[in-house]
Amino acid sequence: MSSPLSEGLKKYSVSIIGASGYSGAELTRLLLHHPLVELQELYAFSQVGNLVSDLYPALGCDKVYKQYCGEKESDIYFLALPHGEALQLVPSLLQAGKVVIDLSGDFRLKSAVEHAEFYKQIKSPEAFMTYGMPELFRDEIIMTKAISNPGCYASSIILGLAPFFFGSDHAIKVRSVNCTSTSGISGAGRSGKIELSFSEMSENIRAYKVGVHQHTPEIMQALGSSATDPSFDFTFTPMIGSLVRGIYTILNIQLERKAEVEEIRAIYRNFYQPAPFVRVRETMTEVKHVVHTNYCDIHIAGITKNGLLTIVTALDNLLKGAAGQAVQNMNIMLGLDERTGLI
Amino acid sequence: MSSPLSEGLKKYSVSIIGASGYSGAELTRLLLHHPLVELQELYAFSQVGNLVSDLYPALGCDKVYKQYCGEKESDIYFLALPHGEALQLVPSLLQAGKVVIDLSGDFRLKSAVEHAEFYKQIKSPEAFMTYGMPELFRDEIIMTKAISNPGCYASSIILGLAPFFFGSDHAIKVRSVNCTSTSGISGAGRSGKIELSFSEMSENIRAYKVGVHQHTPEIMQALGSSATDPSFDFTFTPMIGSLVRGIYTILNIQLERKAEVEEIRAIYRNFYQPAPFVRVRETMTEVKHVVHTNYCDIHIAGITKNGLLTIVTALDNLLKGAAGQAVQNMNIMLGLDERTGLI
Amino acid sequence: MSSPLSEGLKKYSVSIIGASGYSGAELTRLLLHHPLVELQELYAFSQVGNLVSDLYPALGCDKVYKQYCGEKESDIYFLALPHGEALQLVPSLLQAGKVVIDLSGDFRLKSAVEHAEFYKQIKSPEAFMTYGMPELFRDEIIMTKAISNPGCYASSIILGLAPFFFGSDHAIKVRSVNCTSTSGISGAGRSGKIELSFSEMSENIRAYKVGVHQHTPEIMQALGSSATDPSFDFTFTPMIGSLVRGIYTILNIQLERKAEVEEIRAIYRNFYQPAPFVRVRETMTEVKHVVHTNYCDIHIAGITKNGLLTIVTALDNLLKGAAGQAVQNMNIMLGLDERTGLI
Amino acid sequence: MSSPLSEGLKKYSVSIIGASGYSGAELTRLLLHHPLVELQELYAFSQVGNLVSDLYPALGCDKVYKQYCGEKESDIYFLALPHGEALQLVPSLLQAGKVVIDLSGDFRLKSAVEHAEFYKQIKSPEAFMTYGMPELFRDEIIMTKAISNPGCYASSIILGLAPFFFGSDHAIKVRSVNCTSTSGISGAGRSGKIELSFSEMSENIRAYKVGVHQHTPEIMQALGSSATDPSFDFTFTPMIGSLVRGIYTILNIQLERKAEVEEIRAIYRNFYQPAPFVRVRETMTEVKHVVHTNYCDIHIAGITKNGLLTIVTALDNLLKGAAGQAVQNMNIMLGLDERTGLI
Repeated sequence: MSSPLSEGLKKYSVSIIGASGYSGAELTRLLLHHPLVELQELYAFSQVGNLVSDLYPALGCDKVYKQYCGEKESDIYFLALPHGEALQLVPSLLQAGKVVIDLSGDFRLKSAVEHAEFYKQIKSPEAFMTYGMPELFRDEIIMTKAISNPGCYASSIILGLAPFFFGSDHAIKVRSVNCTSTSGISGAGRSGKIELSFSEMSENIRAYKVGVHQHTPEIMQALGSSATDPSFDFTFTPMIGSLVRGIYTILNIQLERKAEVEEIRAIYRNFYQPAPFVRVRETMTEVKHVVHTNYCDIHIAGITKNGLLTIVTALDNLLKGAAGQAVQNMNIMLGLDERTGLI
Repeated sequence: MSSPLSEGLKKYSVSIIGASGYSGAELTRLLLHHPLVELQELYAFSQVGNLVSDLYPALGCDKVYKQYCGEKESDIYFLALPHGEALQLVPSLLQAGKVVIDLSGDFRLKSAVEHAEFYKQIKSPEAFMTYGMPELFRDEIIMTKAISNPGCYASSIILGLAPFFFGSDHAIKVRSVNCTSTSGISGAGRSGKIELSFSEMSENIRAYKVGVHQHTPEIMQALGSSATDPSFDFTFTPMIGSLVRGIYTILNIQLERKAEVEEIRAIYRNFYQPAPFVRVRETMTEVKHVVHTNYCDIHIAGITKNGLLTIVTALDNLLKGAAGQAVQNMNIMLGLDERTGLI
Repeated sequence: MSSPLSEGLKKYSVSIIGASGYSGAELTRLLLHHPLVELQELYAFSQVGNLVSDLYPALGCDKVYKQYCGEKESDIYFLALPHGEALQLVPSLLQAGKVVIDLSGDFRLKSAVEHAEFYKQIKSPEAFMTYGMPELFRDEIIMTKAISNPGCYASSIILGLAPFFFGSDHAIKVRSVNCTSTSGISGAGRSGKIELSFSEMSENIRAYKVGVHQHTPEIMQALGSSATDPSFDFTFTPMIGSLVRGIYTILNIQLERKAEVEEIRAIYRNFYQPAPFVRVRETMTEVKHVVHTNYCDIHIAGITKNGLLTIVTALDNLLKGAAGQAVQNMNIMLGLDERTGLI
Repeated sequence: MSSPLSEGLKKYSVSIIGASGYSGAELTRLLLHHPLVELQELYAFSQVGNLVSDLYPALGCDKVYKQYCGEKESDIYFLALPHGEALQLVPSLLQAGKVVIDLSGDFRLKSAVEHAEFYKQIKSPEAFMTYGMPELFRDEIIMTKAISNPGCYASSIILGLAPFFFGSDHAIKVRSVNCTSTSGISGAGRSGKIELSFSEMSENIRAYKVGVHQHTPEIMQALGSSATDPSFDFTFTPMIGSLVRGIYTILNIQLERKAEVEEIRAIYRNFYQPAPFVRVRETMTEVKHVVHTNYCDIHIAGITKNGLLTIVTALDNLLKGAAGQAVQNMNIMLGLDERTGLI
């Protein structure tokens, strides 16, 4: 790429590989309306030749899905593929000097051992890219051309815990975290599984992968710990409920010492003060507050006499948990206001 | 069957072939608790060896799904199979003297031509069994051992129109009927189609098979007319909406002469006076009023100066539209109170 | 207003009276991000002093709701008030030279008699403003400063019928129309009625106001006819279903002569060719295709041998059925591309 | 009451005070079909003179709601009133020798201090009745005529924890419990609050009363501890989600020592072996498995190396969490099979 990152107002060309899933569709929508990029190609193996406007009429997009055959004509490539497929494609894109933002789990974990355990796939230890959580790793994101975009649950959990692990005043240590998250069913992708059918999931809730979800090592790694050798106790119970979009996370955090809600809220407010998409809210948050937005809302809900703290976070799994955060990362990489095309 | 129909309080043995779909599950629930039958075998090709309590824990049933291999040990057989599969099984069950109640469309149409057109399947003209709509054909049902159970949409539409076609005082002729029905998604069966996934169908409505739905000839036939040579204009627009169970039908009926709501309501009240499961309601009906019941509710909603009448009907597609009506038919065939096990 | 309509790129100032309902919230969202207007004041009687970001956190708006006390400082006023309240406010706004777009039913009907019958409110015959349906009345909209924005059901029905009533080639006359529409529950407003609670409306459908809905005279008037003295038979059955947003309308239209689907589709395509927000779709439309957009999708679904035509339309009741169409009207009045801020 | 408890097959007469709420409606349904009771009167202050069949057509009940004026003609009284109202009515019913089952929180807490703190209401310390959780307190239930029926969340949590606190082999001590529960919205009662409307709650999740919910002291008391002076750390985060019925609870339990899932499951299986309505399931449970049943399902989901155990429980808030458990209690008090009328 002949350095479009420094060429000012010229529009960057961008393509999406894996454009027909739900994250791909949100990427399509965001990039179509982004004032500083030109959406070029939409690649989708299973929809080759079909109109975007037939699969997702609401997008109002008159492009046609294509087969990806190694093209490298765009400045920027977003990959929104099933786990395992980006591993093959990313190296040659990077070699060609492209900006790459991968939404899968393929490049999130530094440990190939943990990757093998949680994704049941082999990868080399080099298959790691900058972890694209702007609120924590902005400096690295600015400097790189290769982003691994965080998982949806992981985003809601990491953002809910980060001030205790990154803050300059993280005077309060965390002893353990019990985490339960309910996700919208779009998180499972555009899928024809019976157990995700309307008849099965309407007015239902179902936990799954308790204690073994693949976002666990990602969360631990982002917080400077490790799933294999954890520095604090951590459990994670993911659930799906009767909603298409959104993730709602309850964090029960055992602190090393007592504290008041106000003290915690001040720590969080201070930590997220520069972050336009994280809002520390005084009143209870709920899924409706964040769907169709790139916000992650955080509410400090209560603390017991023994320092057991409850924090609630909410975000849209397809936006701050996927496509929105990916565009936020792109904005930062391109030196733009990170909110461009997102508000 | 050594005439169990006349043996009084002896329990009839009953089995279900195709027991693992949604209608099969409702049949299982109803027959498990029916005071005068003994549920024997549950046959389900795709679930052989699985526990009912694993597939449908709410049923509280400790049986195991089996493969049907031509057994004929029960007195009564319910068939809840995909269209086309009962055609092969029913003849030998009848030959063995069994009571057969088939919930598919295989034996509903007298016309093999219409069957071919609407079901895209070949059948012989003999493949017809008594049409099991108790409110209209009670006398035939009492006399037969072979019932073809009505379709779900068809039930909601036929019951909403019948008094004009069957009533002794059907002084009012019908010139045309425009019908729109919204069905719960369970009507499409236990299915893994993407377009029936929660992510696609939550807060959605979708029409389909406009004017070509296979219940059209069934409706016309039941009303004494014919889809091929209709005696009155009829259109039918089926839809699925964001609900698991229920059918809600709006009938716009052009009458040959003016009338008042009260006159129509009196005709309907009179016609359905002996029918315990059809309720002519003075206030608006809604799906919530009938789900998990065997009722079909009918409300005469309004009529214009030109005799254009609007009638609303509601029923549970899995009960009065399938399993409940099937048990009601069984009760009548066995000489029991038709409400047994249904209220 | 010192003619900001001709001042080019200067931003117009705009305020909303009745900003805290669902239509008001959508107006807030659209106008906040509209590139050529400056959102000034949000008036909401019931929320005076509250932050928009507390009532609707997803809007990301840091304004405070105010009490409207006759201010006239903005160039443009949107009114999204309960029926009856705009009648008092509009005259003085118009007298002060403001552009006014009213989303209520107060100024839709030319006939004070019909208004009294359907709205149960008295108004003078002068209380009528240009009916803001851009696809039909663009010329009038360009010339006026006072718009009455169409009703949500009305929009979905009028757009589905208009080519037969307005088209230069409306060679086909309409004899009668039977119309059923299912609306999202947001159409009932931000309301605390028990019958609109989640527990009552989840997986439910309920018809209401059959034949007496206040959009009936609006539809007839827009089509050049009249509810009091109709030139064709018309019935309308509105329903609410288990969805927040969207209107899905089935039109059963008896034509004076036979026709083919292709002929009808060509008439519609031709008629709506210049309309960016009406899409005549070849495949079935559904609510998901249009929610969160300003599109109205139309599908010609089928026609019988006797010329009984079925047409399906879908739109978002809060956008093309309210706030989106209001902004579209504003764009046209201001001489902008009508899509500005809407795509 | 002239000892109907010992009169064998005579039908007991039963009335419901507070019959028009959702728990009252479920009681109505269960008692109407219970083979050994005769449903006498349905009292409902807000519905006096209305037909049950108008408010809840699905019940198929032709009774009329009455005003309760101190009648004492039934053998058994169920009270399903808002908190605070049963306090006045119960004493005179008990004095008249009636069997009383109260579904409110009025008589659940032994501590008037805790009652004042959590219910914001004053009551005397005598206002306590046998806590009607059959799986734990069967012996007391058999001996009493006065039952306080457990809360819905409380039932799902207590049953999920009991084997560690009651079991003869509770070799494993509990150090702390973090609990999150999602409830169906019917748990908030038949209510017209805006925040419980369909438009607000569809595809939404909202936590509330974090750490201060009134079921907290009830849970601690039932487990032999106390909210005021807890013997183990306990937090409880209740939520409402997009479902009408059901409670889904995730228990994160820190044990004093390591254990395997199989060991825990064996303890639970053993403990609940005699309980027909508690099922310890090997595979994941979900809300669909228990709605419209009186079951509470429990799944031992996982345990970390440090003994942090995750247990999932599910029940129907209106049945095992209210009306079903109430009837189960009645059955036990009357010496009947506890499943009578419930399966």
